[in-house]
Amino acid sequence: MKKLLLVFLLSPLFSVAQNEDSLFIKKIADQILTGGYAYDKLRELCKQVGPRLTGSQQMYKAEAWGIANFNKFNGVQVIAQECKIKRWVRGGADKAVATIAGKKMNLDITALGNSMGAGAKGVSAPVILINSFDELEKRKSEIKGKIVFYNAKFDNTLVETFYAYGATGRYRWMGPSRAAKYGAVGVVIRSMTHATDNHPHTGSMGYNDSFPKIPAAAMGLADADKLESAFTNNKPVSIQLNTYGHYISDSIGHNIIAEWKGSEHPEQIITIGGHLDSWDLAEGAHDDGAGCVQSMQVLQTLYSLGYQPKHTIRIVLFCNEENGGAGGDKYLEEAKVKNEKHLFALESDEGGFTPRGFTINDNGVTLKKLQSYIPLLNRYGVFSIEQGGDGADIEGLKDIGAITCGFKPDSQRYFDMHHARSDVFENVNKRELLLGAVNMTALIYLVDKYGL
Amino acid sequence: MKKLLLVFLLSPLFSVAQNEDSLFIKKIADQILTGGYAYDKLRELCKQVGPRLTGSQQMYKAEAWGIANFNKFNGVQVIAQECKIKRWVRGGADKAVATIAGKKMNLDITALGNSMGAGAKGVSAPVILINSFDELEKRKSEIKGKIVFYNAKFDNTLVETFYAYGATGRYRWMGPSRAAKYGAVGVVIRSMTHATDNHPHTGSMGYNDSFPKIPAAAMGLADADKLESAFTNNKPVSIQLNTYGHYISDSIGHNIIAEWKGSEHPEQIITIGGHLDSWDLAEGAHDDGAGCVQSMQVLQTLYSLGYQPKHTIRIVLFCNEENGGAGGDKYLEEAKVKNEKHLFALESDEGGFTPRGFTINDNGVTLKKLQSYIPLLNRYGVFSIEQGGDGADIEGLKDIGAITCGFKPDSQRYFDMHHARSDVFENVNKRELLLGAVNMTALIYLVDKYGL
Repeated sequence: MKKLLLVFLLSPLFSVAQNEDSLFIKKIADQILTGGYAYDKLRELCKQVGPRLTGSQQMYKAEAWGIANFNKFNGVQVIAQECKIKRWVRGGADKAVATIAGKKMNLDITALGNSMGAGAKGVSAPVILINSFDELEKRKSEIKGKIVFYNAKFDNTLVETFYAYGATGRYRWMGPSRAAKYGAVGVVIRSMTHATDNHPHTGSMGYNDSFPKIPAAAMGLADADKLESAFTNNKPVSIQLNTYGHYISDSIGHNIIAEWKGSEHPEQIITIGGHLDSWDLAEGAHDDGAGCVQSMQVLQTLYSLGYQPKHTIRIVLFCNEENGGAGGDKYLEEAKVKNEKHLFALESDEGGFTPRGFTINDNGVTLKKLQSYIPLLNRYGVFSIEQGGDGADIEGLKDIGAITCGFKPDSQRYFDMHHARSDVFENVNKRELLLGAVNMTALIYLVDKYGL
Repeated sequence: MKKLLLVFLLSPLFSVAQNEDSLFIKKIADQILTGGYAYDKLRELCKQVGPRLTGSQQMYKAEAWGIANFNKFNGVQVIAQECKIKRWVRGGADKAVATIAGKKMNLDITALGNSMGAGAKGVSAPVILINSFDELEKRKSEIKGKIVFYNAKFDNTLVETFYAYGATGRYRWMGPSRAAKYGAVGVVIRSMTHATDNHPHTGSMGYNDSFPKIPAAAMGLADADKLESAFTNNKPVSIQLNTYGHYISDSIGHNIIAEWKGSEHPEQIITIGGHLDSWDLAEGAHDDGAGCVQSMQVLQTLYSLGYQPKHTIRIVLFCNEENGGAGGDKYLEEAKVKNEKHLFALESDEGGFTPRGFTINDNGVTLKKLQSYIPLLNRYGVFSIEQGGDGADIEGLKDIGAITCGFKPDSQRYFDMHHARSDVFENVNKRELLLGAVNMTALIYLVDKYGL
């Protein structure tokens, strides 16, 4: 009898709350899907600003754009948080010409981010094909004086494409120094992609200071297949590689922050963000214009629906994620200095694709709590909230107690465009982008309303 | 104690079966994601055959292509099932020129499928904007001598975009005769899409023989917005509309069928299909080349993995879905004549997008059984199996006892390209297409192995 009474007392309350949330989330969805703010902002960012390499004029233009947009929300404080940035520049038009059994072939290449070019003279050397670091070690005596062609392929059987990226990314990041250790004079890599086109994909690398800083570039899959085929047929391959990457003097960039004070727990912070910088090859529409404008949409929607946040909500357009991470580092550093209390942080940095779910750095009570919201979200495409990765700009916040969370859109198309010239506004679908923002806004609403 | 014993006895068996299925489905996925058969076949169908309007030379070329592909499977019987088809042809280059307050503007239009053109003379008349059939009824006295512009818009708040299509599709299908009833001389409609481009989208309409068969065409959203804006600003609008649609003599098309006999229940049939015909404007890559090649992939994969089906598996490339439905009708008719036992039918006709789930015409035991397979499928993107629609070519099979099922890919991008010139191979993502085929093949494997 007691039990029945309890059920009687609790059930209506629970269903009233669920119903109220369901209705408010429907308002959120309707506002976003009809208003299209994130999509309009993405068009501006891509077409009026364009590529936003750290330290470039466009990066500063993007910062000004972010500030101007945030200034439109009365009562929201706008902060430009200074970050010291290293400034890598491409320095010239990358070029590579392969000679295969005496026949010349232009390769469509892009220098890797942070790599040092050999300039107009470039490097010219015979090429050795290496499929893995294991093979590199076994054949270390053959490396000297050569250009190493890292031919590691995406594993197409991995449905979650970020796992394929994770498995090959190390050749881009540490491949040049690993090869230089054995006397290589340059590195070319098969791009980290399963695209059906031939666009080369850049991305960060880092040198080990113990070895010469040799030039390094990526090529698209069609060119990589041609090179591989030459090796299969025992044809001699050499490459003339001209890249011009170098650093210019350090400068100052900014995290652009909109801070919306909470009414009940103003000292507790919920961060939502993406990174404002991109590579120089394209508009950075998916990476990470999408994450920026979706984060801005969270503010625009909750604000325009008259929502009063209980916790302080910060939208952060992070600086320098692609080739330094200065923005995320600075944000964490300031949080520590000011002894800030960070409740929750959500990053969108996996593209503006149709939503699938979220991952968080928890496998306990908080995960269970967030999973209980899935029935409210799955009509908008989210069926899964699991333990997993967050985002490069926010991951440090877990060290100071935050639950950090990554938005997970469908990953099938991301690496087609990632860090390539095809990452443009036209390749972002309006409804997919907006539907991602719907789920992000709904999750933030629930986290703010019910806490963690 | 007994209960415990039962758990002890059953659990390992269950988990062995689950594990065996999980491993076989992993084999299916690996074979499809690395082999890419469906994608290669779609390229052939789109680029070597092209648009496949019912009765066109390309339709016959596509049939021959289907037969040639099916003939590669030894022991699989290939059947070309004759269907009597009506042959609508576009007959000329559609054209519409609007005059808005004396200023001329070309509209990018396409005649609706099955509509009758007024030829070189065309029709020229003042335009009346009508938002709904309710408004048409209220303003019926104003319709005579006019061209009716049906301005019904997609409801962007509907996350499942087929609901938006369902709500506006009736203006395309019955709008012309509803307007002709009140004396309209032509109809133009806002295309059934939420695309951000201006491509017009065709699609079937049907006349009511009681009223004049007036010309009817669709325009893209940018043009529709311009027309609407003219009405908002009280500017007079007229249109000169030239379309040339008409019927030529009836002919014979074919359902192209591959029949793979079952080893245990050869008399029980599982049908998997898509439709081979398309509109004439584009390659019909998503609609429904994708469904055809995914269905072919089911056969190619199970066959190449050495699977022996228990039930008879039929892959059917249906004829004439777009503007007649003769293929689906004929398939059902023959099934009735031969008293065939149809266990299950699966159609893929919602595009080659990332998979979300399946819908079936059952809300009981079979639904529960299929839902129990979700844990085996969700690593490949399927999280939902619900009661719902199947597919136009197979829906009749439920009348003879089949469970009919529709594959549900993500619907956000479908109506961007549906029946428009943008429905081309380049707009199909390889991995999304293949992942759909993975889930279709896995479901067919489970249905065949365990029955319904």
